[in-house]
Amino acid sequence: MHSAVDVIRVKRDGGRLSDEQIDWVIDAYTRGEVADEQMSALAMAVLLRGMTPPETARWTAAMIASGETLVLSGLGRPTVDKHSTGGVGDKITLPLTPLVAACGAAVPQLSGRGLGHTGGTLDKLESIPGWRASLRADEIRDRLREVGGVICAATEGLAPADRKLYALRDVTGTVESVPLIASSIMSKKIAEGVESLVLDVKCGSGAFMKTPDQAGELATALVDIGAAHGLRVSALITDMSVPLGRAVGNALEVAESVDVLRGGGPPDVVELTVELAREMLRRAGVSEVDPAEALADGRAHDVWRRMIAAQGGDPDAALPRARYVETVTAPATGTLTRLDAYAVGLAAWRLGAGRARKEDTVDHGAGVRCLAKPGEQVTEGRPLLELHTDRPETLEPVREALAAAYEISGADVKSTPLILDKVTSDR
Amino acid sequence: MHSAVDVIRVKRDGGRLSDEQIDWVIDAYTRGEVADEQMSALAMAVLLRGMTPPETARWTAAMIASGETLVLSGLGRPTVDKHSTGGVGDKITLPLTPLVAACGAAVPQLSGRGLGHTGGTLDKLESIPGWRASLRADEIRDRLREVGGVICAATEGLAPADRKLYALRDVTGTVESVPLIASSIMSKKIAEGVESLVLDVKCGSGAFMKTPDQAGELATALVDIGAAHGLRVSALITDMSVPLGRAVGNALEVAESVDVLRGGGPPDVVELTVELAREMLRRAGVSEVDPAEALADGRAHDVWRRMIAAQGGDPDAALPRARYVETVTAPATGTLTRLDAYAVGLAAWRLGAGRARKEDTVDHGAGVRCLAKPGEQVTEGRPLLELHTDRPETLEPVREALAAAYEISGADVKSTPLILDKVTSDR
Repeated sequence: MHSAVDVIRVKRDGGRLSDEQIDWVIDAYTRGEVADEQMSALAMAVLLRGMTPPETARWTAAMIASGETLVLSGLGRPTVDKHSTGGVGDKITLPLTPLVAACGAAVPQLSGRGLGHTGGTLDKLESIPGWRASLRADEIRDRLREVGGVICAATEGLAPADRKLYALRDVTGTVESVPLIASSIMSKKIAEGVESLVLDVKCGSGAFMKTPDQAGELATALVDIGAAHGLRVSALITDMSVPLGRAVGNALEVAESVDVLRGGGPPDVVELTVELAREMLRRAGVSEVDPAEALADGRAHDVWRRMIAAQGGDPDAALPRARYVETVTAPATGTLTRLDAYAVGLAAWRLGAGRARKEDTVDHGAGVRCLAKPGEQVTEGRPLLELHTDRPETLEPVREALAAAYEISGADVKSTPLILDKVTSDR
Repeated sequence: MHSAVDVIRVKRDGGRLSDEQIDWVIDAYTRGEVADEQMSALAMAVLLRGMTPPETARWTAAMIASGETLVLSGLGRPTVDKHSTGGVGDKITLPLTPLVAACGAAVPQLSGRGLGHTGGTLDKLESIPGWRASLRADEIRDRLREVGGVICAATEGLAPADRKLYALRDVTGTVESVPLIASSIMSKKIAEGVESLVLDVKCGSGAFMKTPDQAGELATALVDIGAAHGLRVSALITDMSVPLGRAVGNALEVAESVDVLRGGGPPDVVELTVELAREMLRRAGVSEVDPAEALADGRAHDVWRRMIAAQGGDPDAALPRARYVETVTAPATGTLTRLDAYAVGLAAWRLGAGRARKEDTVDHGAGVRCLAKPGEQVTEGRPLLELHTDRPETLEPVREALAAAYEISGADVKSTPLILDKVTSDR
């Protein structure tokens, strides 16, 4: 007989939870037998006392066991997925999924919506007229077999314990725990049924993890859980001090992703897409195809069009545009030496691209376009940023807040690499 | 604008809560605006991160402000109260209240019921036929003016935030926090409106605090809060490794208390009653009366009889007795060197003297009588303990559990002092 208070006390006093305690508490919480106020006390104890890698792996397994798992065997292709911890202008999933599918793997990209200053993949794709996010499990399998890639909403039945616990952590100050973040991410990804997984752990002002140490800790926790569950898994730690690409906002990011699929687009988005594709194909055991070629010769774009059409979307339809577009001009001439990802993400959110509460809707045309990126020359009085919104009252406060988001100087800017580090399970 | 998550984060990250944050979170919790799952996460953060003395004093003030306070001025006597942190056989409130009242102070002893292995003063007094625990605030004042002492239930309106928070802590593994324990005790005592207060902090197996260090820490926290609120306050740290007196259980303890008030009773109960009375009179500024005399000459007993009668009780009525009385005999001849307070308390609880849940009732006749105390000689085959119960099925398991509760040896036992230390605010 377990009791919630006994389990809480073990962790509170710095002890290690047994497998049986973890299995029981997650199951009992999902069933409502362990109350919210007990789980939040346990979450706070976990946040302050930590969990060992085996505890975290078991916690993840218990959350997976709280619901159903997808069966993705028998597709005739190796399965691989990518997960990003979230950043500003991070639309990589959009070009990456069709690219890796074009190279021969099956990519079931079960995604979420945005909350706060980072966007959500489903919000972005819903900019495309007709496109729908919800698919049943059998539809996901069909799309993977026929098209190779699918981006859709996670089915309701995947890791329900995680959904309940995440909502609780959000209101109880218990989000910022590496074992809880890692188990939340991995429970959903492992329940998806893929054989291999590449994690894009963002690091910098626009990311959840602000320093390379924090990002490294999370990357290691994620890879450890994946390895403990038999996945081929690795993590890239990538820079998120500057927005990715030039577009931040739903339809703006779809347009930029299509540019990339057509062989153009900003160099950082292209670089990260190709590098993540190489890493995913390596984990999936596909060595004969070069993703840079599949991007350049239009194969990835073909898969994109089929993917969008298969979910009711019209890949040729015009995307929504905001009613108001205003510019922020450069106050001086020189080199742009800084453009803060967090500030730009917050600006896009305030302009209507994001939501403050789960129930809110997003304005698909809203967002920010960065006309210059760090390292580029700017001229006094010429446009630096474009603000897109349907809510004109937000323009003035956003403009004021953005004044501190960038710097222009006579000096050259030291360029930072986009990919900072890599963590694999074969350490 | 405060938010619960912001307040939780400050404490979670080891910071100090501001006065405004404390006032807001306690008030908002009492009103239901801060949810149970938020308060339990905060309580866990407080437990693991601690609170400074000024934070704890403010937390206490906020809990007092959540309800009404009694006004005890104009009684024509100095007011003083005692609070014990709870032990096994701790019936000291029963002889002490009339004794201190007989010496000239007013003693409003607002008490609780028992939960777990320690008894509750109200449960004990309800053994007396006709006695009722509930009084209105004006009745408490009247009794104090007329009789000088009153033992009754805390009125509903005193520190409602504490009542709500205590119930929450009980189910979330957040009881064992010195600042939370201290503020819970002191909020009720300060709301009572007394000018001075003596704390009896129990230390040992039968107490909440197992070591002198823990007891000292709690005593200091209690005295600090009292001093911050302008009370004349001190704490005695007293031994609770052995049951107090020979009786453990409601009616059994009332009978032993009446023995003390008649000038007899076990020496440890007499000693602690007189020492606590001296300390209370010192704090109250009453120096002309010796409580040992007031106990010996029957003045305290007279006040007891008036106190009981004033609340409907018949001080001459026969007390309830259990239907079954069995003995545990000594397995050897020698000196009793150990008699564990916790084990005896647990035995009395199982025999029916205590309750497992708040809704349970207690058997007034049930309990344990200790026929020998450590340091006394025992003879093989002669009675050592008496088990009183209405539930004969409990006798066998209790008998088994008690086998490990005592030791008999040829060696002499080193006697430990009853009063281990004293903490005052004039450190």
